[in-house]
Amino acid sequence: MNIKMLFYILGKVLLIEGVLMILPVVCGLFYGESQVIYYIALAAIYIGAGFLISMKKPKNMTIFIKDGCVATALSWLVLSICGCIPFMLTKEIPSFTDAVFETVSGFTTTGASILTDVEAMSHTSLMWRSLTHWIGGMGVLVFLLAVVPMAGGSNMNLMRAESPGPSVGKIVPKVRSTAKMLYIIYLAITVLEIVLLFATGMPLFDSICSAFGTAGTGGFGVKNDSFASYAPHLQWIVAVFMVVFGTNFNFYYLLTTRQISKAFKMSEVRVYLIVIAVSTAIICFSVREMYGNFGETLRHSFFQVSSIITTTGFATTDFDLWPSITKFILLGLMILGACAGSTGGGIKVSRFQIMFKTIKREIESYIHPKTVKRIHLDGKTLDTDVERSVALYFFIYMIIFASSMFIVAFEGHDLVTIFSSVAATLNNIGPGLSLVGPTHNYSFFSPLSKWVFIFDMLAGRLELLPIIVFLNPATYKGIIKKSSKIG
Amino acid sequence: MNIKMLFYILGKVLLIEGVLMILPVVCGLFYGESQVIYYIALAAIYIGAGFLISMKKPKNMTIFIKDGCVATALSWLVLSICGCIPFMLTKEIPSFTDAVFETVSGFTTTGASILTDVEAMSHTSLMWRSLTHWIGGMGVLVFLLAVVPMAGGSNMNLMRAESPGPSVGKIVPKVRSTAKMLYIIYLAITVLEIVLLFATGMPLFDSICSAFGTAGTGGFGVKNDSFASYAPHLQWIVAVFMVVFGTNFNFYYLLTTRQISKAFKMSEVRVYLIVIAVSTAIICFSVREMYGNFGETLRHSFFQVSSIITTTGFATTDFDLWPSITKFILLGLMILGACAGSTGGGIKVSRFQIMFKTIKREIESYIHPKTVKRIHLDGKTLDTDVERSVALYFFIYMIIFASSMFIVAFEGHDLVTIFSSVAATLNNIGPGLSLVGPTHNYSFFSPLSKWVFIFDMLAGRLELLPIIVFLNPATYKGIIKKSSKIG
Repeated sequence: MNIKMLFYILGKVLLIEGVLMILPVVCGLFYGESQVIYYIALAAIYIGAGFLISMKKPKNMTIFIKDGCVATALSWLVLSICGCIPFMLTKEIPSFTDAVFETVSGFTTTGASILTDVEAMSHTSLMWRSLTHWIGGMGVLVFLLAVVPMAGGSNMNLMRAESPGPSVGKIVPKVRSTAKMLYIIYLAITVLEIVLLFATGMPLFDSICSAFGTAGTGGFGVKNDSFASYAPHLQWIVAVFMVVFGTNFNFYYLLTTRQISKAFKMSEVRVYLIVIAVSTAIICFSVREMYGNFGETLRHSFFQVSSIITTTGFATTDFDLWPSITKFILLGLMILGACAGSTGGGIKVSRFQIMFKTIKREIESYIHPKTVKRIHLDGKTLDTDVERSVALYFFIYMIIFASSMFIVAFEGHDLVTIFSSVAATLNNIGPGLSLVGPTHNYSFFSPLSKWVFIFDMLAGRLELLPIIVFLNPATYKGIIKKSSKIG
Repeated sequence: MNIKMLFYILGKVLLIEGVLMILPVVCGLFYGESQVIYYIALAAIYIGAGFLISMKKPKNMTIFIKDGCVATALSWLVLSICGCIPFMLTKEIPSFTDAVFETVSGFTTTGASILTDVEAMSHTSLMWRSLTHWIGGMGVLVFLLAVVPMAGGSNMNLMRAESPGPSVGKIVPKVRSTAKMLYIIYLAITVLEIVLLFATGMPLFDSICSAFGTAGTGGFGVKNDSFASYAPHLQWIVAVFMVVFGTNFNFYYLLTTRQISKAFKMSEVRVYLIVIAVSTAIICFSVREMYGNFGETLRHSFFQVSSIITTTGFATTDFDLWPSITKFILLGLMILGACAGSTGGGIKVSRFQIMFKTIKREIESYIHPKTVKRIHLDGKTLDTDVERSVALYFFIYMIIFASSMFIVAFEGHDLVTIFSSVAATLNNIGPGLSLVGPTHNYSFFSPLSKWVFIFDMLAGRLELLPIIVFLNPATYKGIIKKSSKIG
């Protein structure tokens, strides 16, 4: 394992975190809040320490996929631990467990909160809390690749470990250009949303925080009732942008390069939009008697569907009061998730597509044993490696799901709470049903359960495998030997 | 497709069903019940019709795996439809949907009932209802193979389609001898249980019906409170026999041939017994304050665990009132299921073992990309085909589970009822939680949901694939062409 390179990457990550903390500092100075002093101090420390650690560029910058997993897992741990310190210093979230929970929930774009009163927080901390969504949405290592020149073609291994979806394709041949392109699209759409919200009547602070929450498909808001008290047209804007950020970013790249027909032929995007339309229609029909008119019914149905399928977690109404069939659909959408190559969580539409195609092929080969077939997606032939990694993903997913439920079940809450709290954290959604429904929060859980959720949020965001590789002792076999050889 | 052979098999199945109906006839004559007249008439018709249809042995007796699946699915449909007619004629279950539900529940050894008052049934019908468990437990085609001489080595394809578990190994080289061996062991243990129950104070009728329910891991009882009102020692006997029938039958074959050390080295049996012990211990601890003393607590815990893991479904207490953690464990056991090669349902212990080994191998190959490893179970190297079929099984399982929940959810019951009713039918258990808990029944569901459950019970018992192949239009491509050629 390339330990020097590991330190170099972690130093850069710390440096980036320090720089990003300047945004809440600016916000705090504008509102003249006393909490800003802690943010100033921490930003200075992180920038200084990060600079010192990553000053010397290692000669060997090669990273294998194994090292990529470890670097990714460690980067996210550093981000989360260093990111939670301001909440503890300002005493807004004094408990270490709670502060880590809230920060991990932010960076992983889950949006589950332990706060009972969001509006009591300072603007400074709320801005930082929402910014974690924006950073976590596209990924800090992707950002690193975009801004820091790295040698070697093997930096793809870093990006692959952090990006959501079964197979990261390079949009353009060079990894660095791909990362830049992704962040430019990401930033542009975020700015567009801020402008639209602000221009149509939302306060600037709320606009920025809401856009961060939407862009990362996170779900942290600045009001206790999430989005319920905003004007209907603002709810529509956010609902549409949630769908936009849950779409595969390749789609936007194709659009900007005028390959429009190719963009609209992307089967994952099509399936994703169809699922949203059908789910909204069924829910509209099921809750038709709960709201005043069709417009309101449609708005609430569409908002909740787009919030849940993209794993954002904003809410305009208490969907825990809806009939069972709608709750069942929402639970299904939680697990399905958004497109690969988007900021959304969940299992991802394309993984399900690959799964269905595998099943179809297997059944056919059972009926006609002599034909060997390959699976195609959008005209490309899929590697059997992709099939295997998708199958592996489903298996690990089920095991983590079941084990988490097992531990949380000891607290004795009802089964819907247990099931939906694990689903909501592992898929990075935020609110679940019953005791973790949209009008509740996660503060009542025991510290043990909170750490289970923290693990689930990280495992879900990093798509399971990096975390498993990171925790597997076999990863570190021979490290001491090799590094002593080098030294 | 070999259509003549298909008719031959279906004829034999009908003949066997008619012969087996003699047992309820004897029981009805003994109790002097009026319902017996219908059973006599039907037995005569089935024996006559079955004899006529299967009189002429087809020249070509070859069966491919595809034909095996179709034959199995059709056999089970014939069994269920013909088996439900007596319930309708005696007007004890007048509705067709309900009668099919009850019969399919019997043959698939599910044990879910639509009866609100079991004790109001005639002895004749109760005996037939319990006998369906016994026939379904080991499988009617396995019985057919044991008693009817069939040409060609391809009859293995029939047995493979009907027997539970990822890979049916032949215990002895010849398929027919294996089938005979299985039925001899099955009959011997059933008789042993009847004798033990009768000798220690249970009425003969109850002993026979209970033993049938235990042997097939079915769960139909003859009392409204299942096993709650029987003496504690009778509950202990049944609890132990449930574990016995959930054990891989290879274990007993090895015991009878004095390969005792080999028997106790079977890793599936070991894991199965460890899971039972651990689950019982945790549940004992969780419900310790609900019962009078340790003996009672242990009895109720062990009985419920062995009933659920073997997917039998008998109950001595209302476990729906137990704390959440125990309900969660029971739900987990429902899905896990018993050993392959036993009469129990569920996904099966060995499938989970293979799944875990696959994951371990895949993660290792991720960390050390150059090593290629094979999976071993009990010293045997597993075919990649077995791995693939296990993965396929899990995928299809999840899809059927989710689709069934989706349809049932429209009725608007709570999520625990929806989830556990599907789990209890797809895994052939019987009772679930909440509205389908051990003190309730399935009578309140709509006909649509009941047909979903009927499908789930059949799909679960036949291990998904035969049903999928049977329903897939691709299976029948070219049939008309080929059969017209032959004609």
